[in-house]
Amino acid sequence: MTLDARMKERCAQVERALDRWLPPATAQPRQLHESMRYSVFAGGKRLRPALLLEACAAVGGEDDHALPAACALELIHTYSLVHDDLPCMDDDDLRRGKPTNHKVFGEALALLCGDALLTHAFLLLAREQVAAGVPTVVAAEVAAVLAEAAGSGGMVGGQAVDMDSERKSVGAETVEYIHRHKTAALLRAAVESGALIGGAAPAARAGLATYGAELGLAFQITDDLLDLESSEEALGKRPRQDEQLDKATYPKVYGVERSRQLARQCVSRAKAALECLGENGALLGQLADHVVERTG
Amino acid sequence: MTLDARMKERCAQVERALDRWLPPATAQPRQLHESMRYSVFAGGKRLRPALLLEACAAVGGEDDHALPAACALELIHTYSLVHDDLPCMDDDDLRRGKPTNHKVFGEALALLCGDALLTHAFLLLAREQVAAGVPTVVAAEVAAVLAEAAGSGGMVGGQAVDMDSERKSVGAETVEYIHRHKTAALLRAAVESGALIGGAAPAARAGLATYGAELGLAFQITDDLLDLESSEEALGKRPRQDEQLDKATYPKVYGVERSRQLARQCVSRAKAALECLGENGALLGQLADHVVERTG
Repeated sequence: MTLDARMKERCAQVERALDRWLPPATAQPRQLHESMRYSVFAGGKRLRPALLLEACAAVGGEDDHALPAACALELIHTYSLVHDDLPCMDDDDLRRGKPTNHKVFGEALALLCGDALLTHAFLLLAREQVAAGVPTVVAAEVAAVLAEAAGSGGMVGGQAVDMDSERKSVGAETVEYIHRHKTAALLRAAVESGALIGGAAPAARAGLATYGAELGLAFQITDDLLDLESSEEALGKRPRQDEQLDKATYPKVYGVERSRQLARQCVSRAKAALECLGENGALLGQLADHVVERTG
Repeated sequence: MTLDARMKERCAQVERALDRWLPPATAQPRQLHESMRYSVFAGGKRLRPALLLEACAAVGGEDDHALPAACALELIHTYSLVHDDLPCMDDDDLRRGKPTNHKVFGEALALLCGDALLTHAFLLLAREQVAAGVPTVVAAEVAAVLAEAAGSGGMVGGQAVDMDSERKSVGAETVEYIHRHKTAALLRAAVESGALIGGAAPAARAGLATYGAELGLAFQITDDLLDLESSEEALGKRPRQDEQLDKATYPKVYGVERSRQLARQCVSRAKAALECLGENGALLGQLADHVVERTG
């Protein structure tokens, strides 16, 4: 199976599970549940849950055990986009080719929608993981890994520094801090959670965590480059927004060519960290290449 | 010991634990951590964690086991206030006698602060509960109970209907829905979590859940009445805000006298539900009376 076909399969698998585990749009309060489903089913690539599922599979774990955490992760990612698009943050009106959540449902409901998605993620981690047969001690550890990666010492912390760095002259250290926290922390946690659920040995868990962190940094550098060079059609959102908000990006600090090189170095480190998995790491290796080669 | 002295003791106990488990203000990113501590230590009464601890104690459980969940609950409550005060929600500039979070730190950071507090709550539930010796199966159940009560079918759902009901003519059913969800759900979950951690028998757990739900409704009806009749000094926030936003409140639907009567009926039902606990329920009974008799 090609990587592309495999990713399509993962995407469908995750979307079926998300549909099962999200409150139905007919349940009260309807508008809130509609808004949650609007953003969750707005056409994401499901990279984070796919990484979690593939990491779990790479160490011999079962998809059924990993699906609740994979869905929780996608809800965390989606909530962060809904809040990030709000007027007081990046003030975006287009996401994945569709109007952003607050453009459709209003700011108050978009705020609450994000809050509800984040909360629901932890309901899946506490309830559906256990129902799926994940040992409670592992379920608790996965919830802790994801909460840590998503919180003030991870994603939200990275976003805070990102906002604070707009229209400032920032150095290499700051932009690496932002990217490692706002993006790479959650990708690393995706891979580490999959390893935990799959029962990885300590060495494999550590290797996968490094893989996830390096892949995550490569992903965000590539995002910066795409924002600069791609079209609205390919991105599904307005390009050159970083420039307009004068964001701290790798191209701003290093220039385009050096940024591309740094992203490739991350991918090399990511792939090197997979060596302990042997043949079982092949698909994750292909995924790492894909992340820097994508066009949207 | 008087109820007042006991509540002061609980408050100090919870604040010590919050201080221990929140990231230090000196940790990166500093401004975000400062903003989290600003709102958490803005002088709340710690009613929810106290209820959790007292429910646990009433069924013979240990404080040390209940403290992580008690702190998590207070973080969830605090995040909801920070987001609720934002301009796109109730647009309040005063809370507990101090400027609201976004007035001090700006809207973007206040939004992220709320997100980080909510996320940190689930980190405590996943990590600190287990570290404190709560069995992982109980820790997972407590996290699920709190996530359900805080999410789209609980607190956030109630807030969504609350926002949607401003400037509308609403009936008794809607205002009860709002109050039971935006406020009572989390109070009920507080008491139920305490019961779970304390290892309550099913009958005691059910009785305590009813107690929490009825107490929660009485609490919000009393809040409505205080907003109408109290002073800025006593409330620590601007009074008559509900009227100004034309919110769905009990006094609006039932008038003041009937609302007061309904709150008292809730307290009677709450206290009746404690009967299965005998003498061990005495303090919770006093707390229920206190909730409708308070003046701020």
